[in-house]
Amino acid sequence: METKNVKAFGAEVAKAPLKEMTIQRRAVAAHDVEIEILFCGICHSDLHQAHDDFGGAHFPMVPGHEMVGRVISVGNHVTKFKVGDLAGVGCIVDSCRECEYCKEDLEMFCKVETTMSFNSPDHKSGAGEFTYGGYSESIVTDENYVLHIPESLDLAAAAPLLCAGITVYSPFKHWNIGPGKKVGVLGIGGLGHVGIKIAKALGAHVVVFTTSAKKVDDARRLGADEAVLSSDPDQMAKYNSSLDMILDTVSAKHDINVYLNLLRVDGSVVLVGLPPEQLPIGAFNVIKGRRSFSGSNIGGIAETQEMLDFCAEHNITADIEMINIQDINEAYERLEKGDVHYRFVIDMASLKK
Amino acid sequence: METKNVKAFGAEVAKAPLKEMTIQRRAVAAHDVEIEILFCGICHSDLHQAHDDFGGAHFPMVPGHEMVGRVISVGNHVTKFKVGDLAGVGCIVDSCRECEYCKEDLEMFCKVETTMSFNSPDHKSGAGEFTYGGYSESIVTDENYVLHIPESLDLAAAAPLLCAGITVYSPFKHWNIGPGKKVGVLGIGGLGHVGIKIAKALGAHVVVFTTSAKKVDDARRLGADEAVLSSDPDQMAKYNSSLDMILDTVSAKHDINVYLNLLRVDGSVVLVGLPPEQLPIGAFNVIKGRRSFSGSNIGGIAETQEMLDFCAEHNITADIEMINIQDINEAYERLEKGDVHYRFVIDMASLKK
Repeated sequence: METKNVKAFGAEVAKAPLKEMTIQRRAVAAHDVEIEILFCGICHSDLHQAHDDFGGAHFPMVPGHEMVGRVISVGNHVTKFKVGDLAGVGCIVDSCRECEYCKEDLEMFCKVETTMSFNSPDHKSGAGEFTYGGYSESIVTDENYVLHIPESLDLAAAAPLLCAGITVYSPFKHWNIGPGKKVGVLGIGGLGHVGIKIAKALGAHVVVFTTSAKKVDDARRLGADEAVLSSDPDQMAKYNSSLDMILDTVSAKHDINVYLNLLRVDGSVVLVGLPPEQLPIGAFNVIKGRRSFSGSNIGGIAETQEMLDFCAEHNITADIEMINIQDINEAYERLEKGDVHYRFVIDMASLKK
Repeated sequence: METKNVKAFGAEVAKAPLKEMTIQRRAVAAHDVEIEILFCGICHSDLHQAHDDFGGAHFPMVPGHEMVGRVISVGNHVTKFKVGDLAGVGCIVDSCRECEYCKEDLEMFCKVETTMSFNSPDHKSGAGEFTYGGYSESIVTDENYVLHIPESLDLAAAAPLLCAGITVYSPFKHWNIGPGKKVGVLGIGGLGHVGIKIAKALGAHVVVFTTSAKKVDDARRLGADEAVLSSDPDQMAKYNSSLDMILDTVSAKHDINVYLNLLRVDGSVVLVGLPPEQLPIGAFNVIKGRRSFSGSNIGGIAETQEMLDFCAEHNITADIEMINIQDINEAYERLEKGDVHYRFVIDMASLKK
């Protein structure tokens, strides 16, 4: 199969600085869409994978799963996109399409295999053994895994919605967050700051918990109804048994029991961060109040489109810092220290320099 | 207020052997039912409380919250019971009746205070500062917290349903267990053995997990469709991503992550045991498959009655070993070693000797 050389930025081996490289993209097949990538968000998991923090990573690796751009060609049988359309690609680029979960639009839980945008076995392309992500000029993806990006949104600031946005939207919907509900958001980073905006737009009362006194003001500016310094036990005690759900976006070790106690009967702490250490939970903390500690993992393609349309309706995007691709390694260093407000987005025009 | 002296068995101080003592029961008020206790089950939490394992216990203590017997007198305004009726008292003897949870028949989550059958502040009786449980000749309880025991059930074997039965029935109902669902039951003790019977009667496919090779046969005899030795990784791996819910009745330290991996998407491990140590949970184990680690705490009064009627319909009782009250300390020792098939029940006639 014919392939096309495109410029990209990637890592040759684990923990190596990212640098310019050339990769192959597959030829545009009947159901494929070719997208020129204009902006790509930087997710903390890009960094984890490039550092092989979870093991099993494949190199060379081109990270990136928050891609937005314009369609530059389409396959013969493509019906959902035409050349010139805005388009996005998130975390998922393929799945079996036939298992019970794919049929329920839960492609992230495909029983056969979910093909992720990068660092995932690539059975289709003929252009490499593993998928390459969005730090590149263009991508070729089956139209069923491509999203429409509403024209009304700031395109660069919309990029992080493809991962951060769906990661917070999906659990809010699954746990029925809306008017009359009180939601906690734990942590104000790439995920948490979008979580505050989306929970407010869904009509919930939003209480933010942060370890950082200076983020208390940020939380209010982002739309939180209340912001609590989690290191202050007196402030925390006021919220005992009061929240319907807590979205936990923290990726460092932290005490879940403190937050379980803030839940009403049948409430859930829902983890979307990825702390590397296990989190100890006391029996009484779940038995009292029939509480749950749960997890949530991005969302399906149809729900990602629903989220994008919802964000367009409520004019929600991420708060971003734009960088050139040549500054990626410095951005990774800052990201590792949590020094970003609140999401880096790469201006992919810089790759052409 | 007038009180009545009754014989009981209790502990003078924490960890002391239980011995005969005299306690006071309150006079029968307008809404009260006086019950002669014929049988009382022994729950592991009787032992925990008598040993003050959770702290805050009050002595002298008369344990027991699985009481069945006959009504011997009723107050002027009692409408639900008459003298001669079979009656039962479980874990809860009072609550505020006015908060949102009491109104939803979730008295165990009363926002003001749930009065437990023993070792709970007693605002009503005028007969003592703390409630006294079922290891006694009789009890006086508000009719709204008294259960009807179906005449068709073996009375002694029905006693454990008042705590063990509702503790497993309530989560099965809450997590929608029924035909077409696959349920795991972890541990075959007082709770687990009733859990197997009730899950089968609800129409579920039941898979039992046990650390004990000799309990594999027991599990099948109790009605389990499958029984798995949890120490065998090959056997365990066959159940990956296959169960809708796992009822976890284990009160010792154990690895929850192993069981989270056996759940289907949106499945829950529901803890009803009380391990003293915290249970560490890995982020990926809940994020993959949107799984939950949850707890459940007995059940409300209306649901306890529903459970008793369900058990009568399906002829479900506990498998019991009957003892005389004079043998209680030996029974506690055996219970501590897990040496009981599967619930001790005290023949309260022995107290009259």
